[in-house]
This record gives sequence, structure tokens and C-alpha cells, in this order.
Amino acid sequence: MGVVDDRIAELGLTLPEVVPPVAAYVPAVLDGSRVYVSGQVPMVGGVLAATGQVGELVGLVSAEKAHELAAVCALNAIAAIKSLVGDLDRVERIVKVTGFVASDPSFTGQPGVVNGASELFQQVFGDLGVHARSAVGVAALPLGAPVEVEVIAHVRA
Amino acid sequence: MGVVDDRIAELGLTLPEVVPPVAAYVPAVLDGSRVYVSGQVPMVGGVLAATGQVGELVGLVSAEKAHELAAVCALNAIAAIKSLVGDLDRVERIVKVTGFVASDPSFTGQPGVVNGASELFQQVFGDLGVHARSAVGVAALPLGAPVEVEVIAHVRA
Amino acid sequence: MGVVDDRIAELGLTLPEVVPPVAAYVPAVLDGSRVYVSGQVPMVGGVLAATGQVGELVGLVSAEKAHELAAVCALNAIAAIKSLVGDLDRVERIVKVTGFVASDPSFTGQPGVVNGASELFQQVFGDLGVHARSAVGVAALPLGAPVEVEVIAHVRA
Repeated sequence: MGVVDDRIAELGLTLPEVVPPVAAYVPAVLDGSRVYVSGQVPMVGGVLAATGQVGELVGLVSAEKAHELAAVCALNAIAAIKSLVGDLDRVERIVKVTGFVASDPSFTGQPGVVNGASELFQQVFGDLGVHARSAVGVAALPLGAPVEVEVIAHVRA
Repeated sequence: MGVVDDRIAELGLTLPEVVPPVAAYVPAVLDGSRVYVSGQVPMVGGVLAATGQVGELVGLVSAEKAHELAAVCALNAIAAIKSLVGDLDRVERIVKVTGFVASDPSFTGQPGVVNGASELFQQVFGDLGVHARSAVGVAALPLGAPVEVEVIAHVRA
Repeated sequence: MGVVDDRIAELGLTLPEVVPPVAAYVPAVLDGSRVYVSGQVPMVGGVLAATGQVGELVGLVSAEKAHELAAVCALNAIAAIKSLVGDLDRVERIVKVTGFVASDPSFTGQPGVVNGASELFQQVFGDLGVHARSAVGVAALPLGAPVEVEVIAHVRA
């Protein structure tokens, strides 16, 4: 168990199995010292934890719920990184996070939603988890996921 | 003719002319050993092969058609890479693909659509064509394109 | 004052204060020789210069206005780069720009809008400002911003 693995355990979290791609690609690619992680949706045990657009209207996924789902996406991304590099202590920086939020056009709280992912990266990796980020509200996401998070990380050789 | 050029011919494909940018940018930039390819829309002979949102309702572009269009985007991306690096055998890896699908908000089959691009990269580059990927459903794309595909590739010096 | 600073002044522009992130991340990260700039919205003096979707219908943000806003996003991105690397003359290339335009689904003029950013990068950095680019129309952006621009730049050590 490495330092980062210990921190994940202290946070009461468990790394999931890597989410198998829905299609013809891989969960992550190591390119030199950078890991590109595929867009992660909030799969838990092979099933989406929720579906639908995020917004304030009845029947939509609430911003609070979506914030939790973004953390699930981030955890899935960390599992994808670990599956590729073996030891999470090799992560030198979470460089860039892009958070796509399936949004009712009237919903503009994407930053609060994607914070669910950003905060998890900081909790798990400390200062090394602080990243550049874009948050975007989109029309729809794969399988009806409310949130999708992709990541670029820098790892030690 | 290189190995990759031969495979493109075997697949019955022909690399198009590079699609001239719609605006103030270039089709691709070489940054060290990485090629960043601009978002490619399904231009064929200077004209979009189709326009409109993808979805299941009457009047929308079908998922099957959009899958074909995604392959056209990928072929245009390969042409852009070749225009920059000359020899496609220099491609060591298709690292990352992002597929934007103009989507009716009820359409969640983006992974199947973007597979059209992913599968073409694998057919052309073999194992080197297997990449990390995000697929996202967006409101609208340039000129009414149903699909837009951007790519990061790693090339040999 | 460096060469780039002089050009910014000649263009009659002033670099703003760096826009503080809306959430748990930083405006930009230096990863080796690459700067990843977080998605920038058209903040002026801490306030969004406009809000709403872009389109042709009454009540929407016009394409012309959105073109101006994209330039504001680009200026904020340049400020973020300077805050990280100190001297803008260290910028060797604006490598990649992604422009997200909050779009009425019938609006397909995203390239023209994002040109507002692309043209500013060229005016400020000359040939080094010419980049690869994607332009995408999305449902909604943080705080109701009509445009969001993210950037990858290559800098000298």
C-alpha cells in the first residue's frame, strides 16, 4: 500500500474495478510521462448511479446529487490511472480536468457540480491534486450519465 | 507508400485533401512529439456530408449515419496529421480522441457514434490506434455538422 | 516590458487581473514546458460581460457580441499564462484552443464566434499564436457565460 492508497482508505473510499469502456477504446493511455484518462461516467458496480440532465426543475438531477456523482467519476478516473501505472504514488500532478455536465439549458451551476471531482482529487493527492479545469454544460452524455469527467495526469517514470 | 498508407488503400479508403479551417487557425500543430489536430467535421470534397442533430426522432440524423460520419471525421484527421508530419508511419500512437455529437437531448448513444472514428483509427493504425476517449453530446456544431472529432497523436521525431 | 507586453499595449489592450477560479482549481498549471489554462469566461472586473445563449433569436446574445466576448476570454487566458510564467516572451506557441459557445440549438456559427479568441492570439503572439482549435456549441456554461475558452501553450524553460 502506497501513501496515496492509504489516503484513499482514510477517506473511507475504495477504488472500484476499472470501468470497461462502452466502446472501441481503452480507459487510459500512458504517453511519455502523461496519462490521458478517458471520460469517466459515474458507474458503480457496472451500473450508472443516476441518469438524466442536471437542473433545478422537478424530475432533473439536483446539483447536490450531481456533485456526488462527479466525485464518483473522479474515483473511477483514479482507478483507471492505477490500472495503468500500478502505483498511485507515481502521480506527480493532476494537470487538467474537464467536467461535462448534462445540463438543462437554464442550469449554470456547472462549477459547483465539477467541484465534486476537483475536491476528491485534492483530498486524495493533496497539493499534487490541484489542477487546471474546464466545466461545461452539454446536451446529453453517454447512456444518460449526468456527469462525465476526463483527466490528464503527470506521472513519474 | 508507407505501411499505413498501404493499409488505408487496403481498406478501400482514400485520404482526402486537408479540410481548410473554417476560421483563424490551422488543421494541426506539431508540439514536440505530439500532434494536436483541430476538431474535424465530416467534410467530403469541401461540403458537409450531412447536417443536423443526431437522435431517434423523425428528421434527425440517425445513429447509424452518424457512425459513418464519425469515420469521415477520423479520415480527415488522419489527412491533417499526414499534412503535418509527411509520413504516417511516424505515428507511434493515437493518444486521445474527443468526439462531440450534436445531440437531441434525449439521445444518449454517443459512444456508438464515436466508435465510427475509434474503429477507423484501429483499422488504420492497428494497436497504435487504440486510444483514450471522451464522447459528449452537444447542442450544435460548426455549420450544422452532426459530429466533430479532435485528436492528439504521438509521432516519432 | 517584453515584446509581447509591448504588442498588447500597442493593440490598446490591458491585461486584466487573473480571474479567480469559481471553484476548487487553479487558473493554469505548468506541466513541463506546457501550460494548461483553465476554461476562461468573459469576466471583466470580476463580473461577466454578458450572459445567455448565443443565437439569432430575439433575446439571445448575437454572434457579433459573442465574438467580442471570445476575445475577452482569450485576454483572460493570456493573463493566466503570465501569472504562471512571468514573462510572456517565454511563450513559444499557442498550441491548442478549445472554444465552447453556449448555443441555441439552431445556431451553427461557432467558428465565427471563437475567431474572436483566435484572432486575438494571433494579434498578440504573431505566428506563434496560430493554433489547432475546436469550436463546439454547448447547452450552458458556468454562471451563464456565453463563451468559454481553454488553451494549451508551449513555453520556453
